[in-house]
Amino acid sequence: MVISSLFWIVPISALTALLFAWIFFKGMKKQDPGTEKMQEIAMYVREGAMAYLKSQYTVVTKVFIVLALLLAVLAYMGVQNPFVPIAFLTGGFFSGLCGYLGMNTATWASNRTAQGSSKSLNQGLKIALRSGAVMGLVVVGFGLFDIALWFLLLTKVIFTPEHMATGLQWIGLTFVQKGIDQHQAFVEITATMITFGMGASTQALFARVGGGIFTKAADVGADLVGKLEAGIPEDDPRNPATIADNVGDNVGDVAGMGADLYESYAGSILSTAALGAALPAIVGQGDYQIKAIIAPMLVSAIGILLSIAGIYMVRTKEDASPKTLLRALLLGTGGSSALILVVLAVMAWANWITWGVFGAAVSGLAAGVIIGQATEYFTSDGYKPTQGIAKQSQQGPATVIIEGMAVGMFSTWVPVLTIVAGIIAAYGFAGGFYNFATGIYGVGFAAVGMLSTLGITLATDAFGPIADNAGGNAEMSALPEEVRERTDALDGLGNTTAATGKGFAIGSAALTALALVAAYMEEIKLWLGRLADKSVDGYKQIGDVLFYKSHAPAVIQAGQHAVQVSDAGIKDFVSAYNLSLFNPILLAGLFIGAMMCFVFVAMAMKAVGRNAGRMVDEVRRQFKEIPGIMEGTGKPEYAKCVAIATKGAQKEMVVPALMAIIVPVVTGIIFGVPGVVGLLMGGMTTGFTLASMLNNAGGAWDNAKKYIERGNYGGKKSECHKASIVGDTVGDPFKDTCGPSMNILIKLMSMVSVVMAGVTVAFSLFGK
Amino acid sequence: MVISSLFWIVPISALTALLFAWIFFKGMKKQDPGTEKMQEIAMYVREGAMAYLKSQYTVVTKVFIVLALLLAVLAYMGVQNPFVPIAFLTGGFFSGLCGYLGMNTATWASNRTAQGSSKSLNQGLKIALRSGAVMGLVVVGFGLFDIALWFLLLTKVIFTPEHMATGLQWIGLTFVQKGIDQHQAFVEITATMITFGMGASTQALFARVGGGIFTKAADVGADLVGKLEAGIPEDDPRNPATIADNVGDNVGDVAGMGADLYESYAGSILSTAALGAALPAIVGQGDYQIKAIIAPMLVSAIGILLSIAGIYMVRTKEDASPKTLLRALLLGTGGSSALILVVLAVMAWANWITWGVFGAAVSGLAAGVIIGQATEYFTSDGYKPTQGIAKQSQQGPATVIIEGMAVGMFSTWVPVLTIVAGIIAAYGFAGGFYNFATGIYGVGFAAVGMLSTLGITLATDAFGPIADNAGGNAEMSALPEEVRERTDALDGLGNTTAATGKGFAIGSAALTALALVAAYMEEIKLWLGRLADKSVDGYKQIGDVLFYKSHAPAVIQAGQHAVQVSDAGIKDFVSAYNLSLFNPILLAGLFIGAMMCFVFVAMAMKAVGRNAGRMVDEVRRQFKEIPGIMEGTGKPEYAKCVAIATKGAQKEMVVPALMAIIVPVVTGIIFGVPGVVGLLMGGMTTGFTLASMLNNAGGAWDNAKKYIERGNYGGKKSECHKASIVGDTVGDPFKDTCGPSMNILIKLMSMVSVVMAGVTVAFSLFGK
Repeated sequence: MVISSLFWIVPISALTALLFAWIFFKGMKKQDPGTEKMQEIAMYVREGAMAYLKSQYTVVTKVFIVLALLLAVLAYMGVQNPFVPIAFLTGGFFSGLCGYLGMNTATWASNRTAQGSSKSLNQGLKIALRSGAVMGLVVVGFGLFDIALWFLLLTKVIFTPEHMATGLQWIGLTFVQKGIDQHQAFVEITATMITFGMGASTQALFARVGGGIFTKAADVGADLVGKLEAGIPEDDPRNPATIADNVGDNVGDVAGMGADLYESYAGSILSTAALGAALPAIVGQGDYQIKAIIAPMLVSAIGILLSIAGIYMVRTKEDASPKTLLRALLLGTGGSSALILVVLAVMAWANWITWGVFGAAVSGLAAGVIIGQATEYFTSDGYKPTQGIAKQSQQGPATVIIEGMAVGMFSTWVPVLTIVAGIIAAYGFAGGFYNFATGIYGVGFAAVGMLSTLGITLATDAFGPIADNAGGNAEMSALPEEVRERTDALDGLGNTTAATGKGFAIGSAALTALALVAAYMEEIKLWLGRLADKSVDGYKQIGDVLFYKSHAPAVIQAGQHAVQVSDAGIKDFVSAYNLSLFNPILLAGLFIGAMMCFVFVAMAMKAVGRNAGRMVDEVRRQFKEIPGIMEGTGKPEYAKCVAIATKGAQKEMVVPALMAIIVPVVTGIIFGVPGVVGLLMGGMTTGFTLASMLNNAGGAWDNAKKYIERGNYGGKKSECHKASIVGDTVGDPFKDTCGPSMNILIKLMSMVSVVMAGVTVAFSLFGK
Repeated sequence: MVISSLFWIVPISALTALLFAWIFFKGMKKQDPGTEKMQEIAMYVREGAMAYLKSQYTVVTKVFIVLALLLAVLAYMGVQNPFVPIAFLTGGFFSGLCGYLGMNTATWASNRTAQGSSKSLNQGLKIALRSGAVMGLVVVGFGLFDIALWFLLLTKVIFTPEHMATGLQWIGLTFVQKGIDQHQAFVEITATMITFGMGASTQALFARVGGGIFTKAADVGADLVGKLEAGIPEDDPRNPATIADNVGDNVGDVAGMGADLYESYAGSILSTAALGAALPAIVGQGDYQIKAIIAPMLVSAIGILLSIAGIYMVRTKEDASPKTLLRALLLGTGGSSALILVVLAVMAWANWITWGVFGAAVSGLAAGVIIGQATEYFTSDGYKPTQGIAKQSQQGPATVIIEGMAVGMFSTWVPVLTIVAGIIAAYGFAGGFYNFATGIYGVGFAAVGMLSTLGITLATDAFGPIADNAGGNAEMSALPEEVRERTDALDGLGNTTAATGKGFAIGSAALTALALVAAYMEEIKLWLGRLADKSVDGYKQIGDVLFYKSHAPAVIQAGQHAVQVSDAGIKDFVSAYNLSLFNPILLAGLFIGAMMCFVFVAMAMKAVGRNAGRMVDEVRRQFKEIPGIMEGTGKPEYAKCVAIATKGAQKEMVVPALMAIIVPVVTGIIFGVPGVVGLLMGGMTTGFTLASMLNNAGGAWDNAKKYIERGNYGGKKSECHKASIVGDTVGDPFKDTCGPSMNILIKLMSMVSVVMAGVTVAFSLFGK
């Protein structure tokens, strides 16, 4: 099949990203690794992190093998696409590889950042940011590379003109149907490619949930015994859990965040391409379809190049203040975003996308920025909400908790109204409110626009935990106070960029999930066609609608309505499946979707609690049994704490992860398409709101504590400080385990539904 | 108009309820009021409660006058029914009257129950239950009386055959349209009567939110300073907030709960009657419509008589154990419920309702019982979830909070799946899944069935706070230990029945809200007809559908569809307004509905926090300034605490209450019908789940504390106990302010939408 020659920018950009990731990695390795003590501590963290990854990937590999086999069985039953089992594995593999590379880099970078900071702030900033950029660039590089590879394979090797003429079958599976035309071939290719996202989604789920359980168990464990019981400061080398705590930062905030955004990145590009392929024909524009498919890939590809340029733009003077630092970072991220708008405008001018789609992409970017700013407002101690929590500490821990919950819940109004405005604007700009297909393509493009400069935004995200670890390294290596001050400045900067990063992560998750739900209907359409093909009469009846593949049914009864599958639009599906809110089956799905979010959070929270309990026991044991540990003469067994948290996380992550995969499948089988649509929309709305609440409450508690530590309300070791530590401890699983997991849950449930569309169409009991 | 003579059972039963309420009140007053000290303490509580009510009703009256004026203006603009402004006031008045009568009884009863308990357990039980029954009976009595009164007025005085022939106009407003037939008249009457529920809804909102803020501010304030700081036991007369705490039990659990269920009771009967009037004609059954309208009223009327019988059934031996006590209560509530099933079966046998509707009512009752049982499981310290929270207290308050949150969130799966099963069963039984109108009538009937024996279930609910207050009275009057033990046994019993009561309250709220959403569409239909009447062409176009009143439009364009308003069904509305989940406007509503629940809870929580803060300051002041207060020689200023909590509650309740009223109106004006439907469904699903979480987490924390107080994990005054008190304090606003407020929020938003349907149809900007 003929694809535009501009497409080649896509794989080239992907490889460029990987090249620069390698350059940044090598550059970081060449830096001064610091004293022997610093290297030793970094080695502990690195070994712990790698041990964790090894253990996690062992579990995940097993799960992947089982799921791939199940998908293969479904393919043989004719209700699953034959490419999916393999593509599922490649998606999972590349996402996992990114996690490994990003974490490997981060753990080499921490002592070098600490050492760099001992020379100058600029030196520390550069090392940390470029090390973070490795994570950012491998995610976008491998993400886009996987997409380009499959797109080339499918268009150039599988769907060749010859295969399309004669059909392609192999070991009893149909890969290309006989007589398919180019337009339909593109629809099939893109609809198939979305399902490749499931590998990335599943990997992301385990990375986020497992990583979240590990990191917070280590953190809570270290805090409860070390800070509260033994009264030693954070990152004190006498605390056996302190290495595990540093490992956790890498596991959760580097690998987990990377896998999360890998999924959003791949999911948004793939679903937008599929929605583009299914757009109704535009008169007089023969190549509109291929343009609509390639446009999201192209934007992402150019976004990579701009991200690399942005990373080089970040530099500061030697004696920079935190404000200058922030401005330097904003120059990089803001500059890349501004330039991507120029690129989009050029594309609109060259008729690659409409100006409406341009408007949609702008809406997406704007929504991401606003959500990030609101996160900053509600969680930074420069503003009233967080200060209000600190104030409540005067009345003890209970009122700290009540106020923090209230702040978190209240804060949801901004992200919700923003995402609502973003969706309506993207939909309205692109489709003018009357055309669903182009409107929803616009929503997909809003997500693509938001994530196009992920290379640099993820770099500024991964920068945070590296700076945090550098601080830990400096503390444990007893470097001079001024080094710690510099790494603290970098860490503080990381917290601000993390707020923006979280805004993008959750905003893009909602938009991606919505695009996936729309793509789900395309998937249903594809399977209706396949099943209509197989049926004796050549059509498939759903509700009052007869979907036919080649010829209209001979007899149509009163009240029935016949539609050719390839012409079927959203209105036909709404009517056939009764996708109105007044269908009790759909309402059941909506309820279950809302409930799923709460139950998932509960499971993640309990898992953190149990794992933290194991950690507490171990730390208490070491304090009691190792002689001289408190005097600094006895050596804590760091590795044991890491091993315990690792084992616990592996054990705890399986049940919630499997639930997220199984519930959409079971809902599909019992309640059919309306049940699934209800489930996804219910999960999306409640999950998005709940995630905003959890993230903001957690962040606000954290910073309220820091506000008190800076001398307010009695400062460190006061009763107010103790009360605020309770809030911080409660907030840990809120903001670093449960909130981020919601992103994955809403995307994964959509992805699973997309992949299982064939099963739903073929087997659903109710809800037809 | 001719109505069935069986209808007269309805007003007679209502008056019977009021008669027995009077009898029970007089009976209670005749009991021994106890020592002078006991009477004095009861007087403090009574005066505080009445001062609170007076203050609340002053604010509420102002709000009602403003709202009634606004409704009158809308009526003059032709977008509001002319009966509504008056009916709004009667609904609010009767609901408020119930609150007054119930609380008046409860405050006279507490010392008499304490005195009764000093004689025997049976004596205490009887006084407390029959006093609680006053609340139960005035709620059902006035609720049904108001409905019967309006129904008689409308059918016998307003919609007379003469008025229907000539039309009825007065001061420029149309009360009866000229030439209306009997069938349509019943549709108009019942659709109008639903809007009467808004008075009850608004009153309930203020009662629940204001009462919730008062009671928890008093409770938290008393606990924080009294228990934690001063180290004096609960209900100690030296604590200045202790009277306010007792007042709070009456204000929140008696008046608040009563108003909440008054609203559900009236709302479910009225919406079911309206859905019944709109049922499609059944061939050969001329009187099907009047039967369908009166059936829900009739079931409720007979339920009243069975409730009274049930109250007389509750008696126990003098030396009864708590288990025997529970069995005695269950005999009353269970017996009434079993008998109502027999009545329903007789009605089905006599062709008043179908057997399908009978099945629907059974589904509703079953759902209520299961949700209540699950509440009991997740919150009673006899089971693992609550014991697990107690166990976490060993690691301090933070893990108590995390575990409690997890228990609350996890527990949502039972109520959600139960209500889903209940809705699907009710819908399926009544309508066989193919008939929306009869299916949703079944859902309404499920709510009616659930609430038919409200007379006795509310009695067992109000029994709890009376027993609690009796305990407080006994403690403060220094009665012998055995009296306190007996009142504690009664109080414990009250907690168990409260769990079931909460299950019914939230289950019925969800079903009522769903029936109201369906009734909303009937209201929209009514207004479409009125506006079509007024339009030049005689029709109103919404989307692709032309709704006409008398003659089909002459010209219908391609893709358009014309339907006579009176024949329009749910499918026409779904198509006209695009009520699918793929309408971004509807999706916007869904998001906003979910968000509203979180923001409302946040506001209520902050209000409690602020009000508790004022209380803490006052109690601290009194401890410091009043000489001899700790030695029992100085007298605390109880009334000041009550006044402060009262003033605070009035101030705090207005903003969230107005938000609950304004948001649906604004949503309707901006996003039209699809936005409103999304808002209501989003609010219903998220609100129901969130309410379950808040109620169960709060209940579990409370009982985990009690579990420790009974000697586990070190018992009273241990570190574990302190940690568990933090959980209990956080749980107080969860379970007694925010959770119950969710019931009101989801019903009120539906009710406001119903009342404002005319405004939405006439003025909405988007979403057509």
